[in-house]
Amino acid sequence: MPRNYGFGRADEATHPESMRATLSEFLSTFIFVFAGEGSVLALDKMYKDEALGASSLALIALAHALALFAAVSASFNVSGGHINPAVTFGAVVGGRISIIRAIYYWIAQLLGAVVASLLLRLATSGMRPMGFVVSPGVGDLNALVMEIVMTFGLMYTFYATAIDPKRGTVSTIAPLAIAFIVGANILVGGPYEGASMNPARAFGPALVGWRWKSHWIYWLGPFIGAAIASIIYEFGVIQADVPPHHPHHQPLAPADY
Amino acid sequence: MPRNYGFGRADEATHPESMRATLSEFLSTFIFVFAGEGSVLALDKMYKDEALGASSLALIALAHALALFAAVSASFNVSGGHINPAVTFGAVVGGRISIIRAIYYWIAQLLGAVVASLLLRLATSGMRPMGFVVSPGVGDLNALVMEIVMTFGLMYTFYATAIDPKRGTVSTIAPLAIAFIVGANILVGGPYEGASMNPARAFGPALVGWRWKSHWIYWLGPFIGAAIASIIYEFGVIQADVPPHHPHHQPLAPADY
Amino acid sequence: MPRNYGFGRADEATHPESMRATLSEFLSTFIFVFAGEGSVLALDKMYKDEALGASSLALIALAHALALFAAVSASFNVSGGHINPAVTFGAVVGGRISIIRAIYYWIAQLLGAVVASLLLRLATSGMRPMGFVVSPGVGDLNALVMEIVMTFGLMYTFYATAIDPKRGTVSTIAPLAIAFIVGANILVGGPYEGASMNPARAFGPALVGWRWKSHWIYWLGPFIGAAIASIIYEFGVIQADVPPHHPHHQPLAPADY
Amino acid sequence: MPRNYGFGRADEATHPESMRATLSEFLSTFIFVFAGEGSVLALDKMYKDEALGASSLALIALAHALALFAAVSASFNVSGGHINPAVTFGAVVGGRISIIRAIYYWIAQLLGAVVASLLLRLATSGMRPMGFVVSPGVGDLNALVMEIVMTFGLMYTFYATAIDPKRGTVSTIAPLAIAFIVGANILVGGPYEGASMNPARAFGPALVGWRWKSHWIYWLGPFIGAAIASIIYEFGVIQADVPPHHPHHQPLAPADY
Repeated sequence: MPRNYGFGRADEATHPESMRATLSEFLSTFIFVFAGEGSVLALDKMYKDEALGASSLALIALAHALALFAAVSASFNVSGGHINPAVTFGAVVGGRISIIRAIYYWIAQLLGAVVASLLLRLATSGMRPMGFVVSPGVGDLNALVMEIVMTFGLMYTFYATAIDPKRGTVSTIAPLAIAFIVGANILVGGPYEGASMNPARAFGPALVGWRWKSHWIYWLGPFIGAAIASIIYEFGVIQADVPPHHPHHQPLAPADY
Repeated sequence: MPRNYGFGRADEATHPESMRATLSEFLSTFIFVFAGEGSVLALDKMYKDEALGASSLALIALAHALALFAAVSASFNVSGGHINPAVTFGAVVGGRISIIRAIYYWIAQLLGAVVASLLLRLATSGMRPMGFVVSPGVGDLNALVMEIVMTFGLMYTFYATAIDPKRGTVSTIAPLAIAFIVGANILVGGPYEGASMNPARAFGPALVGWRWKSHWIYWLGPFIGAAIASIIYEFGVIQADVPPHHPHHQPLAPADY
Repeated sequence: MPRNYGFGRADEATHPESMRATLSEFLSTFIFVFAGEGSVLALDKMYKDEALGASSLALIALAHALALFAAVSASFNVSGGHINPAVTFGAVVGGRISIIRAIYYWIAQLLGAVVASLLLRLATSGMRPMGFVVSPGVGDLNALVMEIVMTFGLMYTFYATAIDPKRGTVSTIAPLAIAFIVGANILVGGPYEGASMNPARAFGPALVGWRWKSHWIYWLGPFIGAAIASIIYEFGVIQADVPPHHPHHQPLAPADY
Repeated sequence: MPRNYGFGRADEATHPESMRATLSEFLSTFIFVFAGEGSVLALDKMYKDEALGASSLALIALAHALALFAAVSASFNVSGGHINPAVTFGAVVGGRISIIRAIYYWIAQLLGAVVASLLLRLATSGMRPMGFVVSPGVGDLNALVMEIVMTFGLMYTFYATAIDPKRGTVSTIAPLAIAFIVGANILVGGPYEGASMNPARAFGPALVGWRWKSHWIYWLGPFIGAAIASIIYEFGVIQADVPPHHPHHQPLAPADY
């Protein structure tokens, strides 16, 4: 049975470990969004308005996968390496972190994405961040399904490699699995709706570039997908295996699991 | 000497651990096929009928390698990380899992591939999955040899890094080796016959897109290649080293080896 | 509290371990710069003066990331795997290595980059190394911001995965995180100012190709970015967690941390 | 001081462990050459005589790096993961394996490359393997320098991550470092002389495709580069650190080091 933190421990809001983890989420999300959105601007700098092609899509996927790997690795043993409000939501749904810690993480992630978008604007002499749009010919509901399924894959991978108490040696390569499924999914969803799987990744550029069309998809889709993955993994995979009060089922450091 | 499970333990069909492993195979195959077939559809969305080029082929190989790494990692400590009926067949041939467990895995893998193909259809506003075809100018027997050799490479890598009881630290990077040999082989076999090495990867899109031409190649080739690799590794590499009743030769968790 | 080495131990200049580490930095930087600058020349060999495109940019980023991973891995347990004067500077700022050792490393890194550039000239039948330039339409200050932010990301990743005493299993994948953030950032900064993040990488080709325009950016930017990252990580993340004289806070081998 | 095996132990020629390691080298080299040379043929299948471009070069480098990683991983704990006569030669020069074992490995590696080239011919309906050529405008001596420097980087990485008795956790990622430096160097040397770094990789396609022009470069260059790297690492890095009879200096399993 997952531990239920409810609203959180009384001292969590001021505990140094919480502050440290929140700072780590802020900086790692900053690093990830800078590279992810930056690669989109770099293509715009090189090509100006050309349609997305295989090389460009591969470049965007690579930039996201490589940077996310570094960002998750950098915060993995400090904050748990979420770098994504949807992943944090999934961890709440599975009972793996408290709501108060999740709120801290969410603020840090969104702030990191906004600062990254602002600094990109400065470094690129004022280019306007692009964020995500649904492509012509793709319905909003299709795009929503795409985000749900892709984020399901991300959260399921995250749960299996970074949360599951019996994950074993797989935990060493967890940041790589998390980054690579995002890279793979960008190669799928990119031409349809950009492939975000991460509300912070979508929010920062949307705010700084002031582009809000269909923005709700990039929040609702990832949250639904992450929640489904957490419930299936927590109750279908972990619970099926570990009876309540089983000695294997112990709290694992860091970040409450 | 490999342990021979024959048809399996009496309780295997209902054991919670079997159910958990089967669910894991289902979901990981779902994640892999969604990204793999999805990347092919994404190219079709961008280009419409253009001939396969170096960038497109690299994109397809990347999508498969990245997603397979995540999928294998996610199920590695639960089901053994097969994600592929041919790999499961190889494990049966080598005496490493029971036939009853293999049947569970096969059903889960095929189901995962079918569900992925259906959801792709929904997320892409109805695009018809492509699956695999033998290219013009390539004979069916040539394509069969290609699938046999490529799957041999995959299964040999799987055996050496994920099954061999003396694999040591290599087991940490096993999911990466498994994913990368698939990516490399797609760069070889792609222009000739698509490069499946995985009957589930071929079956899901074939069923949903209803394309069955030369479909038998994508079952027979991988099964033959995997069987040869298992026999060579089990009897040529492991047996040459470990005498019967040697204390090193013990059952290893998880998933029966 | 970080250990403050000040100018260094009295025997450090002649200690065999210092010589060994310095040789390691020299050779790893040589390997990295040969591949990094070599990939730029290889593109020039293939295309002659074509504008940078997505495939070319991805190729350059890949060459740097793959080679840096090998170079950092090769020196990780000998010298700490800096391969970069800015990273060495960050380690000094955080109090993790002595100034005398840093001077040894800097000389070795610059020398490695110069020898690599000379051998490239020989192997390519006399092609003139390119180094880095700020692209037309990009201001020097914009380029400086880009270098600062990108090197911040690199140094932060380095600190979190290779220096932090509580980094745990992440240390196994540290060289990968370090290499991948460099690869990701090249995909961002490449079209604007080349994306160096490493004064040695910029210096070797600049000297051998005798191109010094805006060269100061590729020293000042990385040093500022690395210093900021070290201060934030050392005092914001490590200090917030480990009280002075805490038993966890012990010197870690190798290379003084 | 490195252990000197001289010609080898008396029983080495018939010892089961030697046979097992030799089989492993044969099969891993087969897997590597099939993917490496196969990717070149795949490009030829798609394009027919087009000049090498950035996408094609990246594809070739990826195929080699991904397949070499799998091949090295698969034999790492059995034979030491050489997959390359030049690496085996370097290990002999450094005194890390006996000459008799090296002869076994060389035969296995060359045989594996030849069988891969033959099966490629069958799978591709008779395409003639390409192997390596020096590009127009590049002198043989320039190409030789390129092979020497690139193989130096490979062997140095191999020594540091797979042989050095003090390599520590880096040994887990050794196969990745070995594979990635080969991938990076292909992005450099590819347009000049193909970038082999491996006499077996060059020999198999040369024999089956019967192309021997400048073939000596692909033997002499790698052997010189590997020998230099072994001598520098063995005497400059390891010896500088470990005095003779030091307790750390013990034989390490597997494959004689």
